[in-house]
Amino acid sequence: MIAVNDTDTKHMFDNRYGTGQSTLDAIFRATNQLLAGKVLVVAGFGYCGKGVAERAKGLGADVVVTEIDPTKALDALMQGYRVMPMYDAAKIGDVFITVTGNRDVLRSEHFSLMKDGAILANSGHFDIEIDVAWLEKYATKKNSRIRHQTDEYVLSDGRRILLVAEGRLVNLGAAEGHPAAVMDMSFSDQALTAEYLVKEAKNLTPGVHNVPTEIDKEVARLKLQSMGSEIDTLTPAQVEYLNSWEHGS
Amino acid sequence: MIAVNDTDTKHMFDNRYGTGQSTLDAIFRATNQLLAGKVLVVAGFGYCGKGVAERAKGLGADVVVTEIDPTKALDALMQGYRVMPMYDAAKIGDVFITVTGNRDVLRSEHFSLMKDGAILANSGHFDIEIDVAWLEKYATKKNSRIRHQTDEYVLSDGRRILLVAEGRLVNLGAAEGHPAAVMDMSFSDQALTAEYLVKEAKNLTPGVHNVPTEIDKEVARLKLQSMGSEIDTLTPAQVEYLNSWEHGS
Amino acid sequence: MIAVNDTDTKHMFDNRYGTGQSTLDAIFRATNQLLAGKVLVVAGFGYCGKGVAERAKGLGADVVVTEIDPTKALDALMQGYRVMPMYDAAKIGDVFITVTGNRDVLRSEHFSLMKDGAILANSGHFDIEIDVAWLEKYATKKNSRIRHQTDEYVLSDGRRILLVAEGRLVNLGAAEGHPAAVMDMSFSDQALTAEYLVKEAKNLTPGVHNVPTEIDKEVARLKLQSMGSEIDTLTPAQVEYLNSWEHGS
Amino acid sequence: MIAVNDTDTKHMFDNRYGTGQSTLDAIFRATNQLLAGKVLVVAGFGYCGKGVAERAKGLGADVVVTEIDPTKALDALMQGYRVMPMYDAAKIGDVFITVTGNRDVLRSEHFSLMKDGAILANSGHFDIEIDVAWLEKYATKKNSRIRHQTDEYVLSDGRRILLVAEGRLVNLGAAEGHPAAVMDMSFSDQALTAEYLVKEAKNLTPGVHNVPTEIDKEVARLKLQSMGSEIDTLTPAQVEYLNSWEHGS
Repeated sequence: MIAVNDTDTKHMFDNRYGTGQSTLDAIFRATNQLLAGKVLVVAGFGYCGKGVAERAKGLGADVVVTEIDPTKALDALMQGYRVMPMYDAAKIGDVFITVTGNRDVLRSEHFSLMKDGAILANSGHFDIEIDVAWLEKYATKKNSRIRHQTDEYVLSDGRRILLVAEGRLVNLGAAEGHPAAVMDMSFSDQALTAEYLVKEAKNLTPGVHNVPTEIDKEVARLKLQSMGSEIDTLTPAQVEYLNSWEHGS
Repeated sequence: MIAVNDTDTKHMFDNRYGTGQSTLDAIFRATNQLLAGKVLVVAGFGYCGKGVAERAKGLGADVVVTEIDPTKALDALMQGYRVMPMYDAAKIGDVFITVTGNRDVLRSEHFSLMKDGAILANSGHFDIEIDVAWLEKYATKKNSRIRHQTDEYVLSDGRRILLVAEGRLVNLGAAEGHPAAVMDMSFSDQALTAEYLVKEAKNLTPGVHNVPTEIDKEVARLKLQSMGSEIDTLTPAQVEYLNSWEHGS
Repeated sequence: MIAVNDTDTKHMFDNRYGTGQSTLDAIFRATNQLLAGKVLVVAGFGYCGKGVAERAKGLGADVVVTEIDPTKALDALMQGYRVMPMYDAAKIGDVFITVTGNRDVLRSEHFSLMKDGAILANSGHFDIEIDVAWLEKYATKKNSRIRHQTDEYVLSDGRRILLVAEGRLVNLGAAEGHPAAVMDMSFSDQALTAEYLVKEAKNLTPGVHNVPTEIDKEVARLKLQSMGSEIDTLTPAQVEYLNSWEHGS
Repeated sequence: MIAVNDTDTKHMFDNRYGTGQSTLDAIFRATNQLLAGKVLVVAGFGYCGKGVAERAKGLGADVVVTEIDPTKALDALMQGYRVMPMYDAAKIGDVFITVTGNRDVLRSEHFSLMKDGAILANSGHFDIEIDVAWLEKYATKKNSRIRHQTDEYVLSDGRRILLVAEGRLVNLGAAEGHPAAVMDMSFSDQALTAEYLVKEAKNLTPGVHNVPTEIDKEVARLKLQSMGSEIDTLTPAQVEYLNSWEHGS
């Protein structure tokens, strides 16, 4: 078995540039909200979170990042994002996007602090990043589909929470998923790896293997070419220098 | 008559932040193209052009600006955009957006240079910024609505040109126009100006008047308040200083 | 007399791109502070303020803008900056830069709220934007020139305020002023306007005149050319269209 | 032996945010060049190259990246930078910064294509990234120190090449190295790792070890705290969920 999802040409691009754009595309289609000047809270600063944060910033939002990992949090801070616990972010956010891979990232203690009209969406993995079950149970009223893929939950104090795509993956639920221009890399990884497996299976031990680096680099090379970009190649003197440096005396 | 369209709270916001976001929103809905890494050409660097350019840059595009005015062109250049004539931009663009207020901005001499699959949209005024008539007349084939609001014109050499929303205003044709969060300002300008007209008509001479600055500033003040932001007020010493500076001895 | 300072090729470039870069250059030389992750407060959002804000954001700072004008404040907000009164900004800022053209923008009521080690600089007009006189009078200790052009004021509660270039124009006081690449435009405006005055003086009425648009555009055109950029020219059909539109029936 | 340089809190911050800012700071001090509107070429897109590229973009430059690795090149492209071989970049660059870790990145074949007045600096490792030896040997004239740390080489055809800090590490040679605010993390890594070595040496096998993750995370946590930022902690339900996901049945 080969873990295709772990290749650079998948997670560095699909997760970041694909998720980044398609998540905000989904928010547009679902809510037609102007992002300029809005406080957009991104929960999680992995590749998906980076992608969402940089696209939201590029669209004029004031981006707040929440994290549980101090290194990722510090990275976000150094990139100019505000970093704070969700307890504080909940009070100021206009739009919330969860991309953590965990459950209950937005939950009752946060719902109770949010502004009227707050927009919630999940672009992480499953529909448990936002505690939709709580909203379903405790909202005094639910106005389904007030817009494309958007449900409005009215809380007991009258505040309204807008949930996009039922808390499911928002780019699939309210937009069209990743553009073809990033999926082509993931699919190329899969196709070339399948070919590799067929040819090399007899030489591999049972277990989970990585995609060979050559395949990963070949996909990047082909993609670059398709976009009309070329790169440098090492001169013999440079190859010799790198070898002497890396392995040298 | 009062020229409501010329107020700051209209053209500084509606034209820039409204058009900026909604134009790209329309491109997403029509083509689902990934903008990251694409060359996006903006024709015109007025408020609309600035808005489109900054949002496209924020979405990861390599933005090229074309202009006829040297001051605007220089401003674009100093903001990090590449500036060149459309003749050169036509050869490298993946997406073209016209926002000039003029006709024939994209025309046969440019179509003949474009890459296969180039995407064309107009977010300027009328459907004559792109010479659609030429495409209709000289394309060897037209595949209508290959996607939402997107027509494909096949040229005699086989290259395909994708036209969004028939060259009409793309944010209205393929998305939902400006978000409510910028239209509220334009409408407030209109409402308050209408009230002003009713009250002050008898004191006004016939002709085209500007919206009173007080109305413009009041709309900005109310909008800021609605977004939860406050600003400073001058101290008496500061007022005195400004007066002495402006009118002083 | 001709008001050279009001030409587009002066204030759109010198004030924005010149002041933007040289102000932060001065902060670097004076303090060697990392801006990434710092809260940088810009007082004033005219051309100078825009320049400082966009460069600070580009260097990774979390930029806060203060204003007295609601339209400018709203513009800053829509560009993704936080907008608040100085009373609130004073509590969270790491670096403060005044570019307002007014006096007492930073004064005792703000000093009393600032964090230990806050850095203050003025890139506006005179050395009264920051109330240096108060610091001189009420600081319990002054450590002069703890670094290049930086004085440290110790307040009665032990907090330290760092003042760069004595509150004078910081890009002149602690760096080298504007780069030649923006001053060339201002000087060209002056030279060509002087020539114009000599030639046309006999036809001008006494008073303050604007720089002729032709000179302003010519300077922009020459600057573009010197940077290797070209722009479009209107086709006859476009000229006719614009004329019909602007003057037409 | 423990490889302190490989910790996240070192290379993710020192290399990126430290090198990014201090490299451009050095260019300012050495040349006082306006970066807005200039073509700035970054050779290498590792952490240092990313840092230089994002700061240069933030200062208004049109940033071009050269690479030998297709994945890094594609990443740069998707972030909106232009990617091309140095042979092409050499013709259009105004400023060149090498951050590759290799030799001869800028060499005679590139010097011969550069524009008059091109500025060259190295922020990589040694002074061999730029082939200074060639310039020393073949330039028809050398004007030393025409500005702070800047030497001018006049080539046989009259073009001038400006070399900053003799091709040595430019942030050390022409500015002040990294700000204290990033060095504090590297030094904390070293101090805590030294303490760890003293305590745990007897339990370690001879060889090169990694810094324990706990130390790396502790440094990030302390740094965040010093900057006034807090982060989230996992709830018991979240811990359980992550465990079930990672190790689960």
